[in-house]
Amino acid sequence: MKYKKYKKEFDYTYVFGSFAVLNAINSHANEIVEVYSHEKLSQNSLEIIEKACLDNKITFIQGANKQVERVRLRESDFVFAIIKKYSDEIEDNQNHIVLDRPSDMGNLGTIIRTALGFNYKNIVIIGDSADYFNPKTIRSSMGAVFDVNVKKFKTYKDYQNYCKIDREIFCFMLGAKTELREIDSRISKPISLVFGNESSGLDESYKNVGRSVYIKNSEKIDSLNLSIAASIAMYHFFLDI
Amino acid sequence: MKYKKYKKEFDYTYVFGSFAVLNAINSHANEIVEVYSHEKLSQNSLEIIEKACLDNKITFIQGANKQVERVRLRESDFVFAIIKKYSDEIEDNQNHIVLDRPSDMGNLGTIIRTALGFNYKNIVIIGDSADYFNPKTIRSSMGAVFDVNVKKFKTYKDYQNYCKIDREIFCFMLGAKTELREIDSRISKPISLVFGNESSGLDESYKNVGRSVYIKNSEKIDSLNLSIAASIAMYHFFLDI
Repeated sequence: MKYKKYKKEFDYTYVFGSFAVLNAINSHANEIVEVYSHEKLSQNSLEIIEKACLDNKITFIQGANKQVERVRLRESDFVFAIIKKYSDEIEDNQNHIVLDRPSDMGNLGTIIRTALGFNYKNIVIIGDSADYFNPKTIRSSMGAVFDVNVKKFKTYKDYQNYCKIDREIFCFMLGAKTELREIDSRISKPISLVFGNESSGLDESYKNVGRSVYIKNSEKIDSLNLSIAASIAMYHFFLDI
Repeated sequence: MKYKKYKKEFDYTYVFGSFAVLNAINSHANEIVEVYSHEKLSQNSLEIIEKACLDNKITFIQGANKQVERVRLRESDFVFAIIKKYSDEIEDNQNHIVLDRPSDMGNLGTIIRTALGFNYKNIVIIGDSADYFNPKTIRSSMGAVFDVNVKKFKTYKDYQNYCKIDREIFCFMLGAKTELREIDSRISKPISLVFGNESSGLDESYKNVGRSVYIKNSEKIDSLNLSIAASIAMYHFFLDI
């Protein structure tokens, strides 16, 4: 098959680079369709990927220069995997990161990677959002997208109905009364950390959801970047030290 | 004069977008050479920028569609200012953010913006680095580059020699003994928070500099993104709540 530049409507996506391809093979071997490499792929990487493909019975097509050049993001990408899109379930008894309409693929990827780094393995996306299967998001996440569960809901209400176990919910919004550091990070229930869209934040309807929290910043800036705010909050509640 | 796409060797740079142009006029009016707008700039933005230019005796050339289209970063940029590169001094008695060879313009811009958000107004760059006057860095910083002092040094030693006032220095590196949250954030001296390059971190020579600190993360990722790590550290020592 001849693969073209990624589009959102495809039922598969691409993963670029040796590290991310290996990571995808290890976590989602059953979803990998094929792997293609360019002749410029280093011998060392080629051997490692060849072995991983063999072990998992995945077709590995080498020296496919034109195919790689047709779909890659960067000139330095010499290997890619085609991976079928799949859907995850989230774990009800675990902590959740909830993102309301995140619109930037870079932010989304960075948040997913940081979430994995702080042991949050369940990511909830509410409403229309940046495509988390876009190769750019996957790249920003450095492949972490494949190591967490991501589940989409149309509305926050749908997410609320989905959760059966009692949880503590923190909504990060401007104008909240409690500063993050005033909150004791030792919480006996699973928690949800909820963040709004890059430009509009969480709307008023979230005032009736859980506790509203803010991260103090100087008056010199309007607000923190979404991935920065989310990371600071995730670290605050990450107790495994 | 006919301006071309930005290059690092220019002795001026470009600032795009109404918000950032206004910010640059307010903070660095003397360095602004001219302002150009496209006929698609909204009437509201045009009037505000026209007034700011008039107040500061800056030439404002309107309807310069070809000029704007020739240099802009995005199709949605309808106004830009040309600004002479200038050099800042840092304040010895203030907290410093020290970046050793930061290589990514997006990271650098985000760090500068977050620094301003947590009241760190003095940024030190050691060695070869991403160009902080590149329009992409300026955009990532949302114009914050113009509100902080940025000073470059060839080596860390040069920076050390420059500082006359006693300060507490924290070097963020893998393998450090102290986790960030073990450090009392109330410190009576000015502090320096030192971060390494995105791919290589701080080298061994920094082990003999100040205290080495790490930010705990799960074994699922190698390390945090530089702008995330720096932001978490800046927030830890930001006491103005």
